[in-house]
Amino acid sequence: MVLLRLLILNFMLTISAFAQKDYKLWLQYNKVTNTTIASQYKNNLQGIVVFGNSETSKKYSQELEIGFLNMLGNKPDIKSEIKGENNLIVGSESSLNSELKTMLQSDFEKINKEGFIIKSIFLKNKKQLIITGKNDVAVLYGVFHFLRLMQTNQSIQNLNIYDSPKTNIRILNHWDNLDRTVERGYAGFSLWNWQKLPDFIDQRYIDYARANASIGINGTVLTNVNANALILTPQYLEKVEALANVFRPYGIKVYLTARFSAPIEIGNLRTADPKDAEVINWWKNKAAEIYKRIPDFGGFLVKANSEGQPGPQNYGRNHVDGANMLADAVAPFGGIIMWRAFVYSEHDANDRAKQAYAEFQPYDGKFKENVIVQVKNGAIDFQPREPFHPLFGAMPKTPLMMEFQITQEYLGFSTHLVFLPKLFQEVLEADTFQKGKGSTVAKVVDGSLYNNKITGIAGVSNIGNDLNWTGHPFAQANWYGFGRLAWNPYLDSEIIADEWLRSTFSTDDNFVKPVKNMMLESREAVVNYMTPLGLHHIMDTGHHYGPGPWVSDLSRPEWNPVYYHKADKNGIGFDRSKSGTNATSQYVPEVEKIFDEVKTCPEKDLLWFHHVSWNYKLKNGQTLWNGLALKYQEGVNQVREMQNVWKKSEKFIDQERFTEVEMLLEIQYKEAKWWRDACLLYFQQFSGQELPAGVEKPTQTLEYFKSLKFPFAPGNG
Amino acid sequence: MVLLRLLILNFMLTISAFAQKDYKLWLQYNKVTNTTIASQYKNNLQGIVVFGNSETSKKYSQELEIGFLNMLGNKPDIKSEIKGENNLIVGSESSLNSELKTMLQSDFEKINKEGFIIKSIFLKNKKQLIITGKNDVAVLYGVFHFLRLMQTNQSIQNLNIYDSPKTNIRILNHWDNLDRTVERGYAGFSLWNWQKLPDFIDQRYIDYARANASIGINGTVLTNVNANALILTPQYLEKVEALANVFRPYGIKVYLTARFSAPIEIGNLRTADPKDAEVINWWKNKAAEIYKRIPDFGGFLVKANSEGQPGPQNYGRNHVDGANMLADAVAPFGGIIMWRAFVYSEHDANDRAKQAYAEFQPYDGKFKENVIVQVKNGAIDFQPREPFHPLFGAMPKTPLMMEFQITQEYLGFSTHLVFLPKLFQEVLEADTFQKGKGSTVAKVVDGSLYNNKITGIAGVSNIGNDLNWTGHPFAQANWYGFGRLAWNPYLDSEIIADEWLRSTFSTDDNFVKPVKNMMLESREAVVNYMTPLGLHHIMDTGHHYGPGPWVSDLSRPEWNPVYYHKADKNGIGFDRSKSGTNATSQYVPEVEKIFDEVKTCPEKDLLWFHHVSWNYKLKNGQTLWNGLALKYQEGVNQVREMQNVWKKSEKFIDQERFTEVEMLLEIQYKEAKWWRDACLLYFQQFSGQELPAGVEKPTQTLEYFKSLKFPFAPGNG
Repeated sequence: MVLLRLLILNFMLTISAFAQKDYKLWLQYNKVTNTTIASQYKNNLQGIVVFGNSETSKKYSQELEIGFLNMLGNKPDIKSEIKGENNLIVGSESSLNSELKTMLQSDFEKINKEGFIIKSIFLKNKKQLIITGKNDVAVLYGVFHFLRLMQTNQSIQNLNIYDSPKTNIRILNHWDNLDRTVERGYAGFSLWNWQKLPDFIDQRYIDYARANASIGINGTVLTNVNANALILTPQYLEKVEALANVFRPYGIKVYLTARFSAPIEIGNLRTADPKDAEVINWWKNKAAEIYKRIPDFGGFLVKANSEGQPGPQNYGRNHVDGANMLADAVAPFGGIIMWRAFVYSEHDANDRAKQAYAEFQPYDGKFKENVIVQVKNGAIDFQPREPFHPLFGAMPKTPLMMEFQITQEYLGFSTHLVFLPKLFQEVLEADTFQKGKGSTVAKVVDGSLYNNKITGIAGVSNIGNDLNWTGHPFAQANWYGFGRLAWNPYLDSEIIADEWLRSTFSTDDNFVKPVKNMMLESREAVVNYMTPLGLHHIMDTGHHYGPGPWVSDLSRPEWNPVYYHKADKNGIGFDRSKSGTNATSQYVPEVEKIFDEVKTCPEKDLLWFHHVSWNYKLKNGQTLWNGLALKYQEGVNQVREMQNVWKKSEKFIDQERFTEVEMLLEIQYKEAKWWRDACLLYFQQFSGQELPAGVEKPTQTLEYFKSLKFPFAPGNG
Repeated sequence: MVLLRLLILNFMLTISAFAQKDYKLWLQYNKVTNTTIASQYKNNLQGIVVFGNSETSKKYSQELEIGFLNMLGNKPDIKSEIKGENNLIVGSESSLNSELKTMLQSDFEKINKEGFIIKSIFLKNKKQLIITGKNDVAVLYGVFHFLRLMQTNQSIQNLNIYDSPKTNIRILNHWDNLDRTVERGYAGFSLWNWQKLPDFIDQRYIDYARANASIGINGTVLTNVNANALILTPQYLEKVEALANVFRPYGIKVYLTARFSAPIEIGNLRTADPKDAEVINWWKNKAAEIYKRIPDFGGFLVKANSEGQPGPQNYGRNHVDGANMLADAVAPFGGIIMWRAFVYSEHDANDRAKQAYAEFQPYDGKFKENVIVQVKNGAIDFQPREPFHPLFGAMPKTPLMMEFQITQEYLGFSTHLVFLPKLFQEVLEADTFQKGKGSTVAKVVDGSLYNNKITGIAGVSNIGNDLNWTGHPFAQANWYGFGRLAWNPYLDSEIIADEWLRSTFSTDDNFVKPVKNMMLESREAVVNYMTPLGLHHIMDTGHHYGPGPWVSDLSRPEWNPVYYHKADKNGIGFDRSKSGTNATSQYVPEVEKIFDEVKTCPEKDLLWFHHVSWNYKLKNGQTLWNGLALKYQEGVNQVREMQNVWKKSEKFIDQERFTEVEMLLEIQYKEAKWWRDACLLYFQQFSGQELPAGVEKPTQTLEYFKSLKFPFAPGNG
């Protein structure tokens, strides 16, 4: 007989019996446990006065109450007027009383339409705190900023904050299909339950809107760029309308993808030619129909003549013709067209990396005012690392918006911890030299380089119906960081990681510091164990899960990894210099010169631009072969170190998320080794050289790795 | 300027900002607010002593702690030995001390292997409470039963409970595909994240197991009966093994569906002939491979030669040959084969309702000992109402297990509130008369009629990755009720509804009574507004969403609604009497006689068995046409009444679930009217008669209803 003494289980267990924390994202509103900070907050928040009575003001009132109740443990003292001191006054400019309006007149000049002010003021000699902006959505942003200050335990005693978003369109692109599969989605399936819409409003829609508003996202494209015309039929527009109604109070506009052939498919026309009068009319009527339902509808996102999607070229027209026709349709209602520059053709023998620039750059200045061209961060396709896209800065008369990919199509799906703001920041800080030194991509995107009227940043969503929204708890940080960078493309990713960790997990420095470092290093780790030194697009086919450098049998040459790495007896890499495809010439001379020469080309981009001998000497003195192998090993080592760091975090956070991340890091470690082994064994066939000291022996044979098949890998579009 | 006075929001709001309650199912463990009950509980639970140290005993220890902490608000006093009085003693027979063993010797004779005892005892003159059983899983069942007593606020002062399950196999059938779509699934997508398995164990797997164990479910078939052979490859078996490891401590065995052609598809054999030596050997080896990984693997569920699935008939063999070959493969390891009797052939011109009986009844006594034949509750396919399947009781030498459908393929998906235990109970109580009066289906299923060694009840799962598991909050009651009836097929559905409501929502009688009545009436409501008076299979095609009595163009005649209702100028209904297909002859004479005569046939089954004139006089004096129309109207009225009842429940429960159900009832009401209008307009073409007084005017034209298309309706297999 064995007597088991029951473990004294702490309160955490009662929670961990049912998964919940993950769902709350970065809006945990954990109780403020630091007593000094908590009493400062209580002292400075003795009452709340909310001006305004819009739907949006109801939302920020609720959010303040939820936040205060959870963080401070008590209900705020609600006041119907400003009485006493240390009240929090909240409301938009027009709703303020005349005294406040006058006092803040010059302050309002410091913010734009969506910006907010959080300021400690003296009113009749009494100290108060005000959150305001030019409209209620701006105030909502201010409220979320204020709650973030509290979540990160910052002082609120003497605040003087003016913060305005630097871009107009801060938008998620959902590649969600009407059957709820999500192309390149790794967090379950689509949030949008079309079958139950419009009558059933899932609480998730509301929480999705809250989360987005909290980081300043103001638009969402509900449907896949590989579009289905049915979304434009009344049956579905009714459902879209219901979502728009949910999102509106949170300042989030709804957009749809427009399938270019919709006039044929659902309009019973015989053509979709953008110059055809009936087609033009069909789109005008369709726009009117949509705006009747959704007066603040944002507009259309279009993928045309790319990867099999229909477009104006099917009718001998060009992208300008297509985009402008749609732009005319939505212009009367204030809508915009986001026209994607992600095009490449199987009939174009040109280097795929050159095709978007070659096709779009000549159109500069030809698009209508309400068209913005959406350009991926690099010239291929969301690789772990790409040089910035040569179109940035190259179309001074055309607004260009950035397309980042938040979902980790090429970065380990939802099992690898990769902090993407680091990648985003690298791209935004890249200098195009288009107007001399300092012409960064960020300045193109925020419109400051060429004074664009409309500006924007899009992120391909990593959100699904997984309980934790994003599959990996740390993938929430990529959604968060995307939003923060869309608001301010100059924000440092370290600050983002810091904010996110404190809001999401714990404000304990002993937790935050090492885990933040782990996050910041994670992006370089994935580059190292997947595609070091400028390698790219060597993942397995279709699903893009795991390595597949050997793949060479796909119908289109530029879909094959061998097209990209070009490994042979002589060396490895894609010669895009003058001696090769001359893709470097698409950059301005200052940049071109750097990329074009093997010696000046940054080693992180080396094999992107050059075919280099296996025995080429790297800056660290290693041969290319040895250096490549050591980079792969370094990636694996970095993941092992991430595991060590994480193990030490156990005592700071809840058991459930700790264990989740622990399991995921174990998968990441296993897969990092898989990448290392498969790629090195494959490339070794060409280099003919041994692995250098320090690189672990492969765990399996090349034949084994080649034999792996994943028929049901998620996200395969 | 408008001053908005903030609403004083109660604590509920802080919860409802993020959806959570739904996730907890019937294991809410709400705080016991009745102070008399609470203090009785505290007095009687002054300490806990747990005997045993198995994985399962850890689970029930945890569950008790979670339950007590949440319901009573304090940590139980954990004792390493029995000291003082009013302790809860928990442990399996073999782990008890000799004094307890001796004392309880005769008690253990009152339970079977999976049964439990919950008993107030005196030990050394001190009052104690013991939960025990013959093994730890049985104790776990006892623990959950005890927690249910507390959740439903019942007295625990003088307990003397002996409870044993009446069937051996209480099993969920998941029709989950490897791409995570779920055939006939309306609650999102599959719980099984194959891509992240085996290394990532989702908390949901654990909570799924807890929920199942709490109602006595002891098996789960992970994969769709329309099977994919890949599940039997090492790549997937490794993942299945991981799930089996999670479920094992909760007493849940894993089963898989076996695709009959697997030896060809993954075994590289040229045949799957069950008499072929290589095939026999392949399955033996496959079974050995599986049992090496999962020693307690349950066995296979097989759908063969039905709806396009491969089977023994492809090789000129029969169902017995196929089932017995597989049975031999798993027999050495204690596995079983569940062989489905759901067969019908496009080459058989016979009434579809007769085919399963015609094919299987002659095989009685020919199956191996470890084969059980799985029979759907009715002869067609999970309709809102079907007479019991004639196979029940008709194969005295063969164990038959019941197949119920918990997912609402034909009963309104996950938007209609339909309490299915009412349907299940009706079937289980049906008298087959096979051994004279009282030979109920329940007695066939629990093996008591023919003394079967293996017995079982299967339920086609309604579980998906929706936050609330089942799509509709009340669909959780169908999962719950299925489990309770599988444990005890004689349980009254009113008791089930009562338990479930108190555990899930509130113990307040003012809430429970009306809502329970609403649940109990809900099944008759759906019959009335979809298929009254014995109508069946008149839903729209493929997805089975909404009415489609007009559908007549499908490739197989028995897939067409017109095949089933046979409406014409003369009347409506399928003549299965002697003058028709003579399906009635498949029942024993006592039953046959009742069904065969229009006058004795229960009106609820009238049009199932008879083609009846539009002017036939029903028992209430109405003509058939008028009676039919009034039944449709009654269904609509019942849903309207459900809405009224629900509205009154608002003050008793959380806002989130209240609103969810409110929205869903609105959809149900809309769709009830859709069913009524579409069906009556269609049938009116044949009856040529006006709608009687009391029936509301149709909301649309028949052409409108016929034009509705649902290309992305969920669950379409």
